[in-house]
Amino acid sequence: MSEKKLWGGRFHEKTATLVETYSQSIAYDKQLFTQDIAGSKAHTRMLACQGILTSTEAEKILHGLERIQTEIENGSFPWKPELEDIHMNIESRLIELIGTIGKKLHTGRSRNDQVALDFRLFISESIRTWKLSLIELIGTFVAKAEEHKNTLLPGYTHLQPAQPISLAHYLLSYAWMFKRDTQRIDDCDQRVRISPLGAAALAGTTYNLNPDFIAEQLNLYDIFDNSIDAVSDRDFVLEALFCASTIMMHLSRFCEELIIWSNPLFSFIRIPDAYATGSSIMPQKKNPDVAELMRGKVGRVYGALLTMFTILKALPLAYNRDLQEDKEPFFDTNHTITTSLNIMSDMLLAIEFDKQRMYQALTIGFLNATELADYLVTKGLSFREAHHITGSAVALAEQKNIPLEQVSLYDLQQLCDKIEADVFQILDYNVAVSRRITPGSTGYTSIEKQIQKLKLWLKEQ
Amino acid sequence: MSEKKLWGGRFHEKTATLVETYSQSIAYDKQLFTQDIAGSKAHTRMLACQGILTSTEAEKILHGLERIQTEIENGSFPWKPELEDIHMNIESRLIELIGTIGKKLHTGRSRNDQVALDFRLFISESIRTWKLSLIELIGTFVAKAEEHKNTLLPGYTHLQPAQPISLAHYLLSYAWMFKRDTQRIDDCDQRVRISPLGAAALAGTTYNLNPDFIAEQLNLYDIFDNSIDAVSDRDFVLEALFCASTIMMHLSRFCEELIIWSNPLFSFIRIPDAYATGSSIMPQKKNPDVAELMRGKVGRVYGALLTMFTILKALPLAYNRDLQEDKEPFFDTNHTITTSLNIMSDMLLAIEFDKQRMYQALTIGFLNATELADYLVTKGLSFREAHHITGSAVALAEQKNIPLEQVSLYDLQQLCDKIEADVFQILDYNVAVSRRITPGSTGYTSIEKQIQKLKLWLKEQ
Amino acid sequence: MSEKKLWGGRFHEKTATLVETYSQSIAYDKQLFTQDIAGSKAHTRMLACQGILTSTEAEKILHGLERIQTEIENGSFPWKPELEDIHMNIESRLIELIGTIGKKLHTGRSRNDQVALDFRLFISESIRTWKLSLIELIGTFVAKAEEHKNTLLPGYTHLQPAQPISLAHYLLSYAWMFKRDTQRIDDCDQRVRISPLGAAALAGTTYNLNPDFIAEQLNLYDIFDNSIDAVSDRDFVLEALFCASTIMMHLSRFCEELIIWSNPLFSFIRIPDAYATGSSIMPQKKNPDVAELMRGKVGRVYGALLTMFTILKALPLAYNRDLQEDKEPFFDTNHTITTSLNIMSDMLLAIEFDKQRMYQALTIGFLNATELADYLVTKGLSFREAHHITGSAVALAEQKNIPLEQVSLYDLQQLCDKIEADVFQILDYNVAVSRRITPGSTGYTSIEKQIQKLKLWLKEQ
Amino acid sequence: MSEKKLWGGRFHEKTATLVETYSQSIAYDKQLFTQDIAGSKAHTRMLACQGILTSTEAEKILHGLERIQTEIENGSFPWKPELEDIHMNIESRLIELIGTIGKKLHTGRSRNDQVALDFRLFISESIRTWKLSLIELIGTFVAKAEEHKNTLLPGYTHLQPAQPISLAHYLLSYAWMFKRDTQRIDDCDQRVRISPLGAAALAGTTYNLNPDFIAEQLNLYDIFDNSIDAVSDRDFVLEALFCASTIMMHLSRFCEELIIWSNPLFSFIRIPDAYATGSSIMPQKKNPDVAELMRGKVGRVYGALLTMFTILKALPLAYNRDLQEDKEPFFDTNHTITTSLNIMSDMLLAIEFDKQRMYQALTIGFLNATELADYLVTKGLSFREAHHITGSAVALAEQKNIPLEQVSLYDLQQLCDKIEADVFQILDYNVAVSRRITPGSTGYTSIEKQIQKLKLWLKEQ
Repeated sequence: MSEKKLWGGRFHEKTATLVETYSQSIAYDKQLFTQDIAGSKAHTRMLACQGILTSTEAEKILHGLERIQTEIENGSFPWKPELEDIHMNIESRLIELIGTIGKKLHTGRSRNDQVALDFRLFISESIRTWKLSLIELIGTFVAKAEEHKNTLLPGYTHLQPAQPISLAHYLLSYAWMFKRDTQRIDDCDQRVRISPLGAAALAGTTYNLNPDFIAEQLNLYDIFDNSIDAVSDRDFVLEALFCASTIMMHLSRFCEELIIWSNPLFSFIRIPDAYATGSSIMPQKKNPDVAELMRGKVGRVYGALLTMFTILKALPLAYNRDLQEDKEPFFDTNHTITTSLNIMSDMLLAIEFDKQRMYQALTIGFLNATELADYLVTKGLSFREAHHITGSAVALAEQKNIPLEQVSLYDLQQLCDKIEADVFQILDYNVAVSRRITPGSTGYTSIEKQIQKLKLWLKEQ
Repeated sequence: MSEKKLWGGRFHEKTATLVETYSQSIAYDKQLFTQDIAGSKAHTRMLACQGILTSTEAEKILHGLERIQTEIENGSFPWKPELEDIHMNIESRLIELIGTIGKKLHTGRSRNDQVALDFRLFISESIRTWKLSLIELIGTFVAKAEEHKNTLLPGYTHLQPAQPISLAHYLLSYAWMFKRDTQRIDDCDQRVRISPLGAAALAGTTYNLNPDFIAEQLNLYDIFDNSIDAVSDRDFVLEALFCASTIMMHLSRFCEELIIWSNPLFSFIRIPDAYATGSSIMPQKKNPDVAELMRGKVGRVYGALLTMFTILKALPLAYNRDLQEDKEPFFDTNHTITTSLNIMSDMLLAIEFDKQRMYQALTIGFLNATELADYLVTKGLSFREAHHITGSAVALAEQKNIPLEQVSLYDLQQLCDKIEADVFQILDYNVAVSRRITPGSTGYTSIEKQIQKLKLWLKEQ
Repeated sequence: MSEKKLWGGRFHEKTATLVETYSQSIAYDKQLFTQDIAGSKAHTRMLACQGILTSTEAEKILHGLERIQTEIENGSFPWKPELEDIHMNIESRLIELIGTIGKKLHTGRSRNDQVALDFRLFISESIRTWKLSLIELIGTFVAKAEEHKNTLLPGYTHLQPAQPISLAHYLLSYAWMFKRDTQRIDDCDQRVRISPLGAAALAGTTYNLNPDFIAEQLNLYDIFDNSIDAVSDRDFVLEALFCASTIMMHLSRFCEELIIWSNPLFSFIRIPDAYATGSSIMPQKKNPDVAELMRGKVGRVYGALLTMFTILKALPLAYNRDLQEDKEPFFDTNHTITTSLNIMSDMLLAIEFDKQRMYQALTIGFLNATELADYLVTKGLSFREAHHITGSAVALAEQKNIPLEQVSLYDLQQLCDKIEADVFQILDYNVAVSRRITPGSTGYTSIEKQIQKLKLWLKEQ
Repeated sequence: MSEKKLWGGRFHEKTATLVETYSQSIAYDKQLFTQDIAGSKAHTRMLACQGILTSTEAEKILHGLERIQTEIENGSFPWKPELEDIHMNIESRLIELIGTIGKKLHTGRSRNDQVALDFRLFISESIRTWKLSLIELIGTFVAKAEEHKNTLLPGYTHLQPAQPISLAHYLLSYAWMFKRDTQRIDDCDQRVRISPLGAAALAGTTYNLNPDFIAEQLNLYDIFDNSIDAVSDRDFVLEALFCASTIMMHLSRFCEELIIWSNPLFSFIRIPDAYATGSSIMPQKKNPDVAELMRGKVGRVYGALLTMFTILKALPLAYNRDLQEDKEPFFDTNHTITTSLNIMSDMLLAIEFDKQRMYQALTIGFLNATELADYLVTKGLSFREAHHITGSAVALAEQKNIPLEQVSLYDLQQLCDKIEADVFQILDYNVAVSRRITPGSTGYTSIEKQIQKLKLWLKEQ
């Protein structure tokens, strides 16, 4: 086998069999074939343009690469695990197909800059796909929000009833979170789409290459500034995994609420059968499995980020083989993010919100207490005094086991003689929401404005 | 598809297609087939023993299970992804093979306790395999140590020359580390090998089951104390992943040294071609790729541990679908540990240590300075004074660019008149090592004792 | 300042001021003073016993160390940050107090083995304190369980109603979890309480030391086998932090449930005012802050474990200054564990469980569906058929918005004619619990047995 | 104590003593005093502007706040731990100082939006300080690079000699890494500097607030879009900690190299005494402690990032007390980053690079092998053939124990008859570097260009 190794010149012994398996990457880096071929084509064109290849040579190589692309796509490509990785598999096949001219493809290039390019192309495409999925999900949140402007539910802090809010406002809070995720992806992509080709092994080359040409061909923003950095930098993997981690964290927060809201004591939502499963032993069960699984999957994405940070800790320059371990965590994460976002979009669309149950929940937990306090402030009390009196009113209602709006005016006036009959209007939950007038609040004007702003943004994407 | 779901009683809609893929586990939990079948057989025998199944029924089920085992092993088993997991695939196949009697296998059992059992069996077998690999690796360290009792090299602290040590002593330090790993595995296994079967979904069952019978059949240490805990506990996964993390951390420390020692300025070792690779661009390269890859793989194992800790954070009782995410990190880790340990064993055996280079290195860095200080103490100085005078001697030698043993007696006496000609004997590196007489030191007696102790332990395994 | 450095012999320049601050550890390692003095006293006695110190010298040193202990305890000790760490502060003070004899204390010892000893002593004491707190907490769970054997509540899987369970059974599940934590601590302590003293810098010493004597004096289990390992091993820190991480994870799971159970739609518990806080703006709020904070604190403990694993990744032997970073994560974790366990014990004792609310919740969610299925099995159906019919019964009840036990016999018989009037007894929640007869189940016999087993264990501690 | 709690209205029992300590944050959040006061002043001015406070009231409040600022700065502020946090301490003191008017400061504000504002202000200031330190460090790298354009050393991949590079090029690779860190900080700051004030507890308020006014006063970029998101979002903490983690990872890579380069077998650098320490037992030691400590400190920063991600996993909306745990990891990280960057800047400036040792190292390891291969390509061979022949030449030189440039022409011609005498020019290390002509390579033109580009950028900062 060793005679096939392209680097085997001064090696006398074969690679140990266990090591072949341990060190191969072809099992997973074959996913990079599109990027590898695209990169090789750009490199070929550049070599031709610089006069390093003749145009005939370049033609043959390009033609060979296209044929390989087809072979891989239609499943006829003869993968050889002993060729270690995607780069060697393609190059070796190229030579089989077009002869020794194929060997010239590697001129002025090393696997170190080649794999960095492939991976950057792959990550850039991946995260832009994530962005599209995020945009779709945001669109779903906005659509659901539009349906539920007038659906009220308890806003919780500490999972305790706080103040009445519109369901639209709640849903929109997630839309804004995920929008931030798209911004982070944009920022990250600026640093991902940098061409490292031309850095060669670590020092640059003696060939008169034109890295800018390649960057342009591949629609990248810029080229590397320093060849050592170009082959040893994996910040772009970290950044992409960080973006993924915040996305999954956001999803885990939403899933947590879907799970709690599915519990019969809440029953705020009905997860459709298509997104739930039953139990092999308990016939009544309808479990929010998808939300649970998704919440659990935040684990593997955090894990991937940590994996990459661990690999890079104290790693000397330039390329080290440790870096081969950068791909699997990203591939796994890519799959998790894409499927999770798409499923969440579909599931959210299908979820039914139970307006009645949400409204009932408002009457439990004194969510209009702040309204009473604010009312007392308008009657001239300081907020701290108003807070104290309202606390007493709540204690009274709790003792009587009734909502605040059912405490009699007489009883309220015992606590503070400035309270009048108009207080009951203020205690209405709908009024409470509509009185929130500040930008970004749960008030109806704010909700409308949020929806319009997001819709405009969605349109621009 | 939905009509096939064993829990589908009250469900009207089909599972969404994306969800089928998202929530299936069969792609990876098929690895558990041996454990699942072993567990089902033990359960069947117990049911028969308790009179819940007739002996004819039990026979048929056992026979069916054995046939399934064969089918899976010879590749003829008809896997059905739509059946979600390994348990449903096997149970469904059983019913195909032996008819409705097959349905009785699930009596008094839930997938919750079933998967916990399968996973415990799998982990126990895995970590005991790790232990065997560790034992082999320790054996290799001991064998190499026996060869190199008299090979001296600089002992480093802060990667700076500290004191001369025997290579055997250095190698043995890793043997002891890995021995600790085997102890942790033993401790962990005590908590892994607990049978959860009989816990059913979470509350136990109304059938007159005999969990002890099952535990005995499967050679487990004990049964669960509490059914809720039995189905929601995943501490045993954490512990196994923790053991894996320390193993990989130890390997990463050794790999780091192999990599540094391979650098030509060190050249302490020669990694055989079978464990090195070359470069596609630089013909002279011989890279310690295996050691680098292994060092990098510590990342994925730390990542797996974190994944599991994240999944379990704030997870309410009892079983939640998040827990399905427990398997892939362990499977991946299992593969990493097993291959890494085996390869390290082989590689270590094949590595050549360059005694000459190591000895040369001793003369650089004043490794006998402590000896001089100790000598001065025997002449009546306090250690602090001796330390100070030795510091001056080192400064002098450094200035003259010679090792300490080549500083003239005259020059030494200028620094301290108590120094006599016998000092040069003390400055000999071999003497320095042999004078270390305390237990556990680098002295030859200690090395011999360490080797004997480890050999005895290895024999007992 | 430089002239005060005990290692300053060949150094000409002073330490940079920023570096003084950056590299000092005295700000936090002063916590180790008790262990450092205990270690030094044991070392002194050993030196005397071996004839390396005269008994008069030893007396003076021991007396000096005791005086230092007193000075530190009463706050009169003159801490000097420029002396970097606790070891140098104490040694330097000793010399001030008793003169040059004090310099002999360091004979045959290095800061490398000294700090390893101090930290091992500190960790061993810490984790045994954790164990005591765990024992107290387990005792509280058992006491609460005894009160609530007959309190029923919904057992949840997927946070969906599954089967009725006894609150005692639920509480005991945590008792068993925390008991496992004590076992891990015991196992860990076996590896913590190993004396590294005598390893010196890394190679052992030329002095005729007796490490066993020291181990015995300090009540440790054993001594180091290999001096290099002795000074570079930090597995014991990892293990202690791992124990801490599982403890906090368990607490986070319980806290999660306390928080959900405090929500008014659940109202399963009432957290007393002493463990809750209010809102500065919402007068009605009563938030389970302590449970939330504790849930959040799992983050810093996981973080500490990762910190330590990161430090050790690829760290060459032997001692490296990176290892100084091992202390703060442990100190912080120690504080978190101790306070969290103690507060949880007190809070659990004070929590009131609302039996009525829990019972009401049983009637929502068809928790007796499995009972019906089991009943049908006793009538001759396979479990799978029984499961299917029960599913239909649940669907019917859901449609009528009544619990299963209120579906008429007539309607049930339409679904399966084997159902008779005795079915209603079986649907009783209390009967459901009491019929669970297997070991470890929620049945009353099992609960009683669990309590007795735990009480016995508690007595033995 | 309870009567002082500002939220104590309906509470009857005092907070448990342990809980006071457990839940207080004043011990660390007092660091936020400047931000808290600045936020309160902006809020006061806005309230006045909107007519909610009279200008007299506003004056008094502003004056009181300024007095508090002074008190804190000069150490006379009466901190009260029982007031839990910085917000309550300041508000309570304000009321003491100016009477009940002080109570009006909290109008339309909650601690939820207040703490989010304070923390955003603090983080923004912190990361901009990091940026300044990064700029200084980049400047130092550039300055050092200018000195060492003509200093050659082995460029390593896999820690094996690869190709000769200029030390300037190596140093510049770090400059570019740290420049990327500044870009990430800029991107992060865009999302940090968003004002959450006006979100109140979670729903917005009924007061006619003007959030834009506040944002402008505090020099923030924008205001929140959604009040729920405003109080529950901690993405900005994650992002800042992620930036910190990449910075520390970069530092750890450089430290690793400094440590290896300090080893006497390398001796590429001399770390000045001011940044090294000695050993209490080994008089010759000069340890690169600062580099080691810094490498170790990457652990605590990774740990902080994980801490925050753990806290946020599955946390329901909106504010939960878990979020209080966000501050300490950031404060600790802030200290680590600032001190590490500043010390690295100083240390790098002080490090002496040993040109001679670096040059000697070039002759070990056949770093000009690629040159020979490239030479053969110019003679008409394919790169793959050239690679193979060069491999043989290296094997020959290795066998003769001489560098490649000392192999005789005759011997070279035996391997390939196209080799002529001009080959020796090509094998010169300096020629090898200077022939690298592509952008971003180690060639002198590229280095010059890099330095100019960085200097321009530095000037613009």
